[in-house]
Amino acid sequence: MKIGLLGHGVVGGGVTEITDSCKVRKVRRLEVTKILVKDEWELTDPRCTQNAEEILNDPEIEVIAECMGGIEPAHTFAARALESGKHVVTSNKKMFATCAAELLGLAKENGVSVRYEAAVGGGIPWMSNLERTERLEPVTSFRGIFNGTTNYIISRMEETGAPFAEHLAEAQSLGYAERNPVDDIDGHDVRYKTALTALKAFHTIVNPDEIPVMGIRTISPGDLAWAKEHQMAVRLFGYGKAGKDAVTLWVMPVMISAKEVFANIQSNFNAIESESKTLGKAVFVGQGAGALPTAHAVVQDLLDIYEEKDPRVGELVNLPVVNSEEKWQFYIRTAVPAFFAEIAAEQEGNVVFTRELSIQEMFELLKECGDESVFAAVVMK
Amino acid sequence: MKIGLLGHGVVGGGVTEITDSCKVRKVRRLEVTKILVKDEWELTDPRCTQNAEEILNDPEIEVIAECMGGIEPAHTFAARALESGKHVVTSNKKMFATCAAELLGLAKENGVSVRYEAAVGGGIPWMSNLERTERLEPVTSFRGIFNGTTNYIISRMEETGAPFAEHLAEAQSLGYAERNPVDDIDGHDVRYKTALTALKAFHTIVNPDEIPVMGIRTISPGDLAWAKEHQMAVRLFGYGKAGKDAVTLWVMPVMISAKEVFANIQSNFNAIESESKTLGKAVFVGQGAGALPTAHAVVQDLLDIYEEKDPRVGELVNLPVVNSEEKWQFYIRTAVPAFFAEIAAEQEGNVVFTRELSIQEMFELLKECGDESVFAAVVMK
Repeated sequence: MKIGLLGHGVVGGGVTEITDSCKVRKVRRLEVTKILVKDEWELTDPRCTQNAEEILNDPEIEVIAECMGGIEPAHTFAARALESGKHVVTSNKKMFATCAAELLGLAKENGVSVRYEAAVGGGIPWMSNLERTERLEPVTSFRGIFNGTTNYIISRMEETGAPFAEHLAEAQSLGYAERNPVDDIDGHDVRYKTALTALKAFHTIVNPDEIPVMGIRTISPGDLAWAKEHQMAVRLFGYGKAGKDAVTLWVMPVMISAKEVFANIQSNFNAIESESKTLGKAVFVGQGAGALPTAHAVVQDLLDIYEEKDPRVGELVNLPVVNSEEKWQFYIRTAVPAFFAEIAAEQEGNVVFTRELSIQEMFELLKECGDESVFAAVVMK
Repeated sequence: MKIGLLGHGVVGGGVTEITDSCKVRKVRRLEVTKILVKDEWELTDPRCTQNAEEILNDPEIEVIAECMGGIEPAHTFAARALESGKHVVTSNKKMFATCAAELLGLAKENGVSVRYEAAVGGGIPWMSNLERTERLEPVTSFRGIFNGTTNYIISRMEETGAPFAEHLAEAQSLGYAERNPVDDIDGHDVRYKTALTALKAFHTIVNPDEIPVMGIRTISPGDLAWAKEHQMAVRLFGYGKAGKDAVTLWVMPVMISAKEVFANIQSNFNAIESESKTLGKAVFVGQGAGALPTAHAVVQDLLDIYEEKDPRVGELVNLPVVNSEEKWQFYIRTAVPAFFAEIAAEQEGNVVFTRELSIQEMFELLKECGDESVFAAVVMK
């Protein structure tokens, strides 16, 4: 099976490292014949080209593996590949979360498939386990740690007691965080992954912008100390729950019991839980990023296409995102505790522990409070 | 696809509960047409029979799902089913770990398959994830919590500080432990599962009796307190590592860092980690027992057979079990600390913390020491 690889950076480089060296017979059938690179200095392999047309117009190439990142031109290349009857594998959560409806429609029209295991918790493996579960029964909810960069920062802050900025810089120097870390620390990365999980688990197309998001930019060592004192730990969660005519989806820090699996997820690991009727709760823990685990997921997707495994897309719907039904207590650390007096169950200094209210109510209050340094977390004890 | 179900107890009852009520189209194709029961009072369903011949000789039945437990007659029924060209799905770790070589040979001869997801960590799902990983690369090692009953007892002892016997009785009253709990508490159950994991991950037939085993019969609240003081937790582990001409396999309590995922596995949950070159470490957490999670695994196996998924049995080998190469430190709590003086790195009262030695050396010393109440654990910090 001839494959055109788009992008030869961290993930794309990992893909050729695996496919070129793997001795497993079936993997040897996966032949990367052309590689799109951006810059001249990347033309290190005779298969490399800077001209996408050479790949997209090659009738021998059956599958495009898109590992470029960013929305354009990745989206256009993926769409053109599908239109010309090529399967697409992508590791690009931002692009695919934004363009899933269009690309899955094109895939259906052209009798090909799109796979995106590498886009969400690459090394877990998350998508394939969701597919397996929901072959038998609907996944009713999911929750967990979808972002390794922020988990690295939080777990390091727990260890050292040092402030956020220090461990963000450390994560950047180690290559765990990008120079522009907004997507990670403000939760957008988790938002894309939450949307893609809802797509796989609940068969609904969700515009990521509809998912309320709060990241960890304002987290302080004091918040972690407060959690620890109360036998809890802080983690950044993506959360989803299937309803009848709507889905609950949000991204926000949580405080969970220190005895939960999630509380012991260290460094840049991911851990995501699914729940369904007869299987119950199952948690999958693995490396969510990194060259080889992510490339492993791309190659697994290529093998699924090679073996013609059913991607179980099913009939897609467009359920609205509703966050007004479930109620939670929240931890809020704020410069304006008086603003939150009405919803406080307990208050001590600048910490407010709220009565139960919905995510939607909470996000409205956070927007109104005017405190840019406010930190809030869903209490899941 | 017509299925003959052998056994209609906890697991078998769960299987018909799922297949009879599931609304997913593909699952509706799985039709349990006959059910073997033991006693007359179990003849509650028109499909039930006490005569195995009716099922084994039914030419319409393509698959036998064996949920009886025990070696005989389960083994004979499975062998006869394979000989007559029927696929076999089993939830019976004891029978399959003991008879795998014979049954897989019969399956190969007759062009059918044997699946055993439900036999090891049912709700995890463990076997299917191993199959997926090793489609791309060899699994190099595994370790983890394979037994829910003992994990329930240990995690309850951590909570209450009460002795082993009390929480064993509690587990029995809740139905988590059998009236005769030897298989669970002495580690034999984990031994079967470790052998079956080695079969799937390392493609080697292992006689479970070759795997050194120590259970948790002698564990005391003092052992757990010692672990906690040293920022560790105790868990019962199955462990495996692939070597070139041998495999390392053992079952024994471990002391692991309190920050590890395993330390936060509570109640009767299982958690097993696999390691491989590009995927790295991945941990799978779920309910290892219970009617519905185990039945879910049986039905998933039936679906894999229905979809003709390759069980990736590969060429099987007969690697010896060797536990003399890897070295560990051990915690030993004993009435005869002087006996262990030669291998002690530190000693305090009745606790000996050893220098590094092999599992084989440790088991020899434990056998020689003459202390029936001795408790020992591999230190994995």
